[in-house]
Amino acid sequence: MSTNIFFERKGPFLLNKLFSSISVGKKIKIFDIKPLDEANTNDLTFLDSTNYIEAAKYTKALFCLTTERLKDYLPKKCKAIIVKSVLFELCNVTRKFYPNADIDNLDQSLKTPKRKFPTVKFGNNVLVGKNCKIGKNTLIGNYSIIEQNVLIGENCVIGSHVVLKNSQIENNVVIQDGCKIGLKGFGFIPLNNKNLRFPHIGKVILKNNSEIGSNCTIDRGSIGDTIIGKNTFLDNQVHVAHNVKIGDNCMIAGQVGFAGSSIIGNNVSIGGQAGVSGHLKIGNNVKIGGGSGVVNNLPDGSIVMGYPAVPLKEFLRKSKK
Amino acid sequence: MSTNIFFERKGPFLLNKLFSSISVGKKIKIFDIKPLDEANTNDLTFLDSTNYIEAAKYTKALFCLTTERLKDYLPKKCKAIIVKSVLFELCNVTRKFYPNADIDNLDQSLKTPKRKFPTVKFGNNVLVGKNCKIGKNTLIGNYSIIEQNVLIGENCVIGSHVVLKNSQIENNVVIQDGCKIGLKGFGFIPLNNKNLRFPHIGKVILKNNSEIGSNCTIDRGSIGDTIIGKNTFLDNQVHVAHNVKIGDNCMIAGQVGFAGSSIIGNNVSIGGQAGVSGHLKIGNNVKIGGGSGVVNNLPDGSIVMGYPAVPLKEFLRKSKK
Amino acid sequence: MSTNIFFERKGPFLLNKLFSSISVGKKIKIFDIKPLDEANTNDLTFLDSTNYIEAAKYTKALFCLTTERLKDYLPKKCKAIIVKSVLFELCNVTRKFYPNADIDNLDQSLKTPKRKFPTVKFGNNVLVGKNCKIGKNTLIGNYSIIEQNVLIGENCVIGSHVVLKNSQIENNVVIQDGCKIGLKGFGFIPLNNKNLRFPHIGKVILKNNSEIGSNCTIDRGSIGDTIIGKNTFLDNQVHVAHNVKIGDNCMIAGQVGFAGSSIIGNNVSIGGQAGVSGHLKIGNNVKIGGGSGVVNNLPDGSIVMGYPAVPLKEFLRKSKK
Repeated sequence: MSTNIFFERKGPFLLNKLFSSISVGKKIKIFDIKPLDEANTNDLTFLDSTNYIEAAKYTKALFCLTTERLKDYLPKKCKAIIVKSVLFELCNVTRKFYPNADIDNLDQSLKTPKRKFPTVKFGNNVLVGKNCKIGKNTLIGNYSIIEQNVLIGENCVIGSHVVLKNSQIENNVVIQDGCKIGLKGFGFIPLNNKNLRFPHIGKVILKNNSEIGSNCTIDRGSIGDTIIGKNTFLDNQVHVAHNVKIGDNCMIAGQVGFAGSSIIGNNVSIGGQAGVSGHLKIGNNVKIGGGSGVVNNLPDGSIVMGYPAVPLKEFLRKSKK
Repeated sequence: MSTNIFFERKGPFLLNKLFSSISVGKKIKIFDIKPLDEANTNDLTFLDSTNYIEAAKYTKALFCLTTERLKDYLPKKCKAIIVKSVLFELCNVTRKFYPNADIDNLDQSLKTPKRKFPTVKFGNNVLVGKNCKIGKNTLIGNYSIIEQNVLIGENCVIGSHVVLKNSQIENNVVIQDGCKIGLKGFGFIPLNNKNLRFPHIGKVILKNNSEIGSNCTIDRGSIGDTIIGKNTFLDNQVHVAHNVKIGDNCMIAGQVGFAGSSIIGNNVSIGGQAGVSGHLKIGNNVKIGGGSGVVNNLPDGSIVMGYPAVPLKEFLRKSKK
Repeated sequence: MSTNIFFERKGPFLLNKLFSSISVGKKIKIFDIKPLDEANTNDLTFLDSTNYIEAAKYTKALFCLTTERLKDYLPKKCKAIIVKSVLFELCNVTRKFYPNADIDNLDQSLKTPKRKFPTVKFGNNVLVGKNCKIGKNTLIGNYSIIEQNVLIGENCVIGSHVVLKNSQIENNVVIQDGCKIGLKGFGFIPLNNKNLRFPHIGKVILKNNSEIGSNCTIDRGSIGDTIIGKNTFLDNQVHVAHNVKIGDNCMIAGQVGFAGSSIIGNNVSIGGQAGVSGHLKIGNNVKIGGGSGVVNNLPDGSIVMGYPAVPLKEFLRKSKK
């Protein structure tokens, strides 16, 4: 995520203007909000869980939102800005930089494409926004909507009634009918009477040769991206929440759901209706049985089943009881 | 539900004409079919489960379809009409009053809105039926369909490929792409070769500040309404069956399903892929873990997990075995 | 499946040209690929599982792709073509006969129907392909797409945002909004970097009086058809994978999922969010509880619940532990 082509960024802001109630001294300009591994010296980053202490070690950011408990995981050159709720403060700051990313507004640039894409085959009544790029030999089905700045590679087959926004689609990607990709995710600070929506400034990346079944939903990242790896196939009605990263050559069967921010390795196969909780790390070559509920990290090569998912042998032993 | 703006009502009917095979005497005019708590003295009501004996005590209705077993829960002034199957008789009677509510017919009044809504922003190819009201600053996305008599408040953000029928949407409501809201539910009397469809004469109400994720389905009520409370957020691919009532400030994660007629309290959070069986009462401040299957009523403050869902401590104890 | 009206067939091919690396001798012409029970003497068939040894006994085919382990289940007149992976070879051969069935291409014949269907009521912006037949009094909702060669019977009610391709819809069928029916299924040979997609040359058949809830997905068969029986009702967000055959008078509640090739009997009721694994045989009059995961064949009259699903009594006993 070098520059954000989907959302206009405000700023820079002086650090002490971002946090009126927190004393951070000095007149330092902050240009953007980024995850630990993507932040530069001019950016603000954040550390809200021990899951990310490895990334914290190597961050280039000089300022990091975090808690009293986590502050010692930061490198010396990175100053901790201690808060009670990292997510609440992060939400507020991100809303200052990106005031239009908490709701999916109407793309008013949408038009029926005419002569602009001579090498693309369009169905009827396709709408395409400004600044889209679509590679040669790509097909786009009827009543589908490609919003502004979306990039689509070559030889893609995109079905009907599809919505693509805030997304980068590589080559040879198949997206079946009814998919809604790149919408804002389910992220907010719960407040009585009016929740505070977390801005979603990330995008969705579908890598080469991936395939998405019909009526799937893939939300864009909040900060950071949602990624489907190369040659990974999703069956129908799969739900992929914000910031999930799925590796290469995976098979995800029908109605599987991924909660936010989990990272799935390569060559992973997941049976129908299984669920993966949020913020987990699933290794390479993992097999997850249909209907399982995964609530813990899984090392490479795990074969699990059940709710909560346990190693297959243990599941079979328990089932016999 | 004072008057039904979505379905034309026939009648009044004489009580003894409604039930040819049941002797109910007298020439009494019945004007409508209503649930126990909404019925007036001119309406017929019904009692088919001990879940509703509290509401039965206070009904104003003078006639009630019920069974031999339940008849004594009715107040003295309310005459029981004893039948073998309340639902079967109710279905037949409701079909007499509302002959067009068992199937979702084409709304032939749909048109592209022109000058009628100067304060609303429409995407491309939106269709709006007759008698709709849409509040100022509301956005409606591409290829969405707002059928006749639907009411939409101010500052709502409605996505693309959405269908809204038989619905009342309050202010500041967000509905993401692909949602189908207000369709008839999954209610019928099973009969070999040709099921008898139960009329769905209720509506869907989405209260202020609620949010519905992409590709959700929310069916309208059969008799009575389906309601999503204030500031309640639903993630993607959630299914809400007919007559479900969800309270305020709830968080419902992705792919959760609610069977018909359950009532959910306020401040309830439900993890991804959980299911709530039909005709249950879930209290306030309840937390239901992801993937759980709730098959019993839950008192206020419950924290449950598992299939069937049990208190969290019990679930953890069982999981360790 | 007599002749395939949805996919153009190449050939005939000489048997020894279909398998360059396998010696099958003689100049025999093969005209098509068919399942054991549908194949004629000119067709190639396949046997890849002991599930199908009964059908194997009676096949008319003279040549059958199979394995060393299964070859003895074939009748004497049927010559086994021994391969390591039946699916891999079947995939390759099917791709030769049907080179356009592994991807859902754009139907370029789609047009707004004008005077062609005077007895059908269309919503706005319906698209219909060439050679479609639609029976009288059928309704088709807004923005729906009926692709070429699809057959629809009389008195059907088809909602908005529906896609129908490679399908035969009988009479009095209801399909609610957002359904995607007849798309290619989730079938492929996993290969690193570029999976090999299995052609889907089958269709979807929805029999008389069946009903499909909103946002369901029903994939067409790969070889053979996907079938929903007479008077069978599906609730919202149900996923039916390729080749599944559901009998008559079944009730399938919301968010149920069927993996590929399972066969479900008549009068089966399945509770919400249950899942049925692939290649199973579920008998008549079976009841499957909500949220269950069925991983074994079930005889007639079974009542099961749980994950994995077990007889109800056993489930209740285990739950009490």
